[in-house]
Amino acid sequence: MSEKLTKVQRAAKVAGRRMADHTTPFINNMWYIAAFTDEIKRELIARTILGKQLVFFRQEDGSPTALDNRCGHRSFPLSKSKLEGDTIVCGYHGMRYDASGTCIEVPSQKGCGCSGISIRSFPVVERGPVIWIWMGDEELADPAKIPQLPMLEEGWVTSHDHMDLKANYVYLHENLLDLTHLSYLHAATFGTPDYAEAEFETKITEDRMFLKRNVVPTRLPPVWGKPTNLEGKDAARITTSDFVSPALHIVHAEFYDINIPESDRPDYRIKTAHFATPATQHETHYFVLHGRNFALTDDSVTDFMHGQLMAAFDEDVVGLAAVDELIRNHDGEDYYEISVASDKAAVAMRRYLKKLSDAEHVASSSD
Amino acid sequence: MSEKLTKVQRAAKVAGRRMADHTTPFINNMWYIAAFTDEIKRELIARTILGKQLVFFRQEDGSPTALDNRCGHRSFPLSKSKLEGDTIVCGYHGMRYDASGTCIEVPSQKGCGCSGISIRSFPVVERGPVIWIWMGDEELADPAKIPQLPMLEEGWVTSHDHMDLKANYVYLHENLLDLTHLSYLHAATFGTPDYAEAEFETKITEDRMFLKRNVVPTRLPPVWGKPTNLEGKDAARITTSDFVSPALHIVHAEFYDINIPESDRPDYRIKTAHFATPATQHETHYFVLHGRNFALTDDSVTDFMHGQLMAAFDEDVVGLAAVDELIRNHDGEDYYEISVASDKAAVAMRRYLKKLSDAEHVASSSD
Amino acid sequence: MSEKLTKVQRAAKVAGRRMADHTTPFINNMWYIAAFTDEIKRELIARTILGKQLVFFRQEDGSPTALDNRCGHRSFPLSKSKLEGDTIVCGYHGMRYDASGTCIEVPSQKGCGCSGISIRSFPVVERGPVIWIWMGDEELADPAKIPQLPMLEEGWVTSHDHMDLKANYVYLHENLLDLTHLSYLHAATFGTPDYAEAEFETKITEDRMFLKRNVVPTRLPPVWGKPTNLEGKDAARITTSDFVSPALHIVHAEFYDINIPESDRPDYRIKTAHFATPATQHETHYFVLHGRNFALTDDSVTDFMHGQLMAAFDEDVVGLAAVDELIRNHDGEDYYEISVASDKAAVAMRRYLKKLSDAEHVASSSD
Repeated sequence: MSEKLTKVQRAAKVAGRRMADHTTPFINNMWYIAAFTDEIKRELIARTILGKQLVFFRQEDGSPTALDNRCGHRSFPLSKSKLEGDTIVCGYHGMRYDASGTCIEVPSQKGCGCSGISIRSFPVVERGPVIWIWMGDEELADPAKIPQLPMLEEGWVTSHDHMDLKANYVYLHENLLDLTHLSYLHAATFGTPDYAEAEFETKITEDRMFLKRNVVPTRLPPVWGKPTNLEGKDAARITTSDFVSPALHIVHAEFYDINIPESDRPDYRIKTAHFATPATQHETHYFVLHGRNFALTDDSVTDFMHGQLMAAFDEDVVGLAAVDELIRNHDGEDYYEISVASDKAAVAMRRYLKKLSDAEHVASSSD
Repeated sequence: MSEKLTKVQRAAKVAGRRMADHTTPFINNMWYIAAFTDEIKRELIARTILGKQLVFFRQEDGSPTALDNRCGHRSFPLSKSKLEGDTIVCGYHGMRYDASGTCIEVPSQKGCGCSGISIRSFPVVERGPVIWIWMGDEELADPAKIPQLPMLEEGWVTSHDHMDLKANYVYLHENLLDLTHLSYLHAATFGTPDYAEAEFETKITEDRMFLKRNVVPTRLPPVWGKPTNLEGKDAARITTSDFVSPALHIVHAEFYDINIPESDRPDYRIKTAHFATPATQHETHYFVLHGRNFALTDDSVTDFMHGQLMAAFDEDVVGLAAVDELIRNHDGEDYYEISVASDKAAVAMRRYLKKLSDAEHVASSSD
Repeated sequence: MSEKLTKVQRAAKVAGRRMADHTTPFINNMWYIAAFTDEIKRELIARTILGKQLVFFRQEDGSPTALDNRCGHRSFPLSKSKLEGDTIVCGYHGMRYDASGTCIEVPSQKGCGCSGISIRSFPVVERGPVIWIWMGDEELADPAKIPQLPMLEEGWVTSHDHMDLKANYVYLHENLLDLTHLSYLHAATFGTPDYAEAEFETKITEDRMFLKRNVVPTRLPPVWGKPTNLEGKDAARITTSDFVSPALHIVHAEFYDINIPESDRPDYRIKTAHFATPATQHETHYFVLHGRNFALTDDSVTDFMHGQLMAAFDEDVVGLAAVDELIRNHDGEDYYEISVASDKAAVAMRRYLKKLSDAEHVASSSD
């Protein structure tokens, strides 16, 4: 039986079809983060990215390498096989692959004659602490398009972490573009009650969405207040959410004592990169790279801020998993989402993702 | 490969299409029990009813309230949100809903302008120890159609419980309408060997099915024998199964010593309401409300009978889950069920459920 | 997005459609092993074979019996019912079935009149330590077609075991027909490095595939080397893989010291029957019956060899489950398998299985 939707809800349901969600095919022609550099070592590990099962390892010269995790002969997972030098020897029948995925040896026959067994390799680029991967059309893989990560510049110090998010990556991007949730989902960590009501500006370009929030005056939560000594003072908290690509969102923030003239203020800024790499439609590798431009040599500040931040981001992981679970169990017939003014950037972002996905998958199916 | 069904089995397979089963859409236009009154308190709880995810709470004046569990903005479960007075504040972005499901506050914007975000509320009616809910067309929700529960009358004492049944609700109704299973499924608890072979009468009206069984003479099982002091005596056990609605079945029974003239006999009667509230097609909230008209002030009798009864009903829960699991794993192609004489009322009931479902879902799809 | 397959891979993908895999319907008209004789006793056990849920028991005269596990009345599993003499009394409403599956009693009615309730029985034949079952068209069930098991002849001693394989049965047959995997999957147990590169001959008939491998000279692994005292010597290991039927594969092997003239050599031979009985498309009952023609009276040799063999076969169980899991999670669009020379027999076998399945299921659907 169909619920009686209101006119507004019906319109929202129709409008929703133009927005990406957990049913939208992945965008392949894009640089995503596959791993932090310290995750890829001289051993074989399996990781699913954009629905594809991959195997990762580092070559003897240190180059990170990503291959299809499936032996082209009889589908044994290469991640359960043996790394010998820069080659993988399949754990089933011994087919040997070089780092380009070319099968170079079939033990049961001389001369191999096995080019067809060769498997796909994926372009990877290591930049500082992150390894980028290109899952799409290899001809389009242009490293010049890899986004810059400003927290990796000189004069900044960083920490990073990796979480398993049991939700579609679109919902993570949306979460990051509407920080009104800080007052609610993060009430116990780094949200403050005034956050949701603060003034905001939206800036939307063809492929990038920004939301800037000036929370002034406010009191800073411990994660920002303690290391800046601004705790308990009338402070400003200026935050910009920046959707950089389907793979990356950067949050920029600065903090200062509003009773100190601009020229005399210490420069307290943080930048947090949130990398959303879809594994499946309901699982996302959620990587975080956090940087600050103060207390550069104090490891205890790094530890404190990292711990506080990850506790907050864990609230997102729990909350988004609850949303995804509810949606998965919803019959869908009467499903709609109503957007409000502060969703403007998020809605633009979801339409942009939908457009990218449509373009790629329509193009591909007419190949 | 198709098994070779006999002619009788083929006919049974065809006839089965007229009977409700786990593939039949739910009947929404009906009063179901949502909960016992003591389950709904001043806190938010989630419960799935007829496939819909709901949130329940009690208002400050004590009124039980049922709403869609999904925030109309971005689908956060309200059951994981905050109850403030008679409102729910969504745990994600702070949308505030009143007890009617109307969104009355969007923190990020003044004046709200958010009527579309409002969610559906469901009519609930509290009657004694039970809370009824109407999941269907609200215009048809007539509290006058809520069935009477005779064990709540004066001169009766009751106890109640709530089980999670991992089976479709149709199979629970069928179980209750064919008590021949007492001699087998309940051989270890309140069944006796003579039960299955006892004479029975069936009465079938348009929307109600009865099956009356006179087990005379018999020996009573402890649950009835002990509190009546009829254990070990030649007794009568007269039971009527009464299918009241898709949501409710009442079992009436009386017991007496057949060697005592009717005029001198103590009046020992019990009435057990079995409420079947579908959660999903393979999960049912199974509520039991048991009453007796004797030993009214003796709590130890209540405890004894309740314990004995629940042990027996747990055998139904285990048995029906085994049936449901077998059916789920059956390929279906050669599935059929053969009915016998004592199934007459159950078959009529399943046809009635199918007719109700068809009427509602055909009507709805032509909206 | 479609990956760019090479021409060879595209051809392999097309060729793959002629080979059986986990999507190929089961072959019913075939004798499979249902159980070892010691698994079927005077009690009811459930086992799923070719997707059908069955109940097994042994009659009072010792005859093994297989029936549909579903009561024809209301689908209660007979495996959770009661065995009385040679009959099963359904645990729900007491329907009584004889060993032929005929319903001979309905407690709630005299005279039964219940022939339609009767359920299907399946032909079973007990031969030595194994019980064969025929799941297909009963008219075609010819015990003369049950394969001979040479390790049951006089002068041989056997041991047996039963494993649950979480993979499709086709992949087990393929594993057995290409023993190049011994050098890799079984490197830690009974494989040796020279195995994969050894010369082999293939023999393919219409319904039988053989692969013979002469590993000469070699060193024997402990499982063969210790009981023959050939450990550490220059030995021959001559192995023949023999695909007997969709249900059975036999591995024959002989071992000798190559420095002893043929006329003086002790006769060391083993024969291992691998029975693949599909439960579902991703679960297989994997039965092993191993025989040897030496050390006939030494139980410690039996224990030693059995332990060593089962450790090796467990590597197959783990490896094939990994393959099956990878395939299940593969999107399939770009799936292909490339075969090499040593797969010739395996490919012929998979084509043969596909042909048998097609013949049966096309015939059946045109009934």
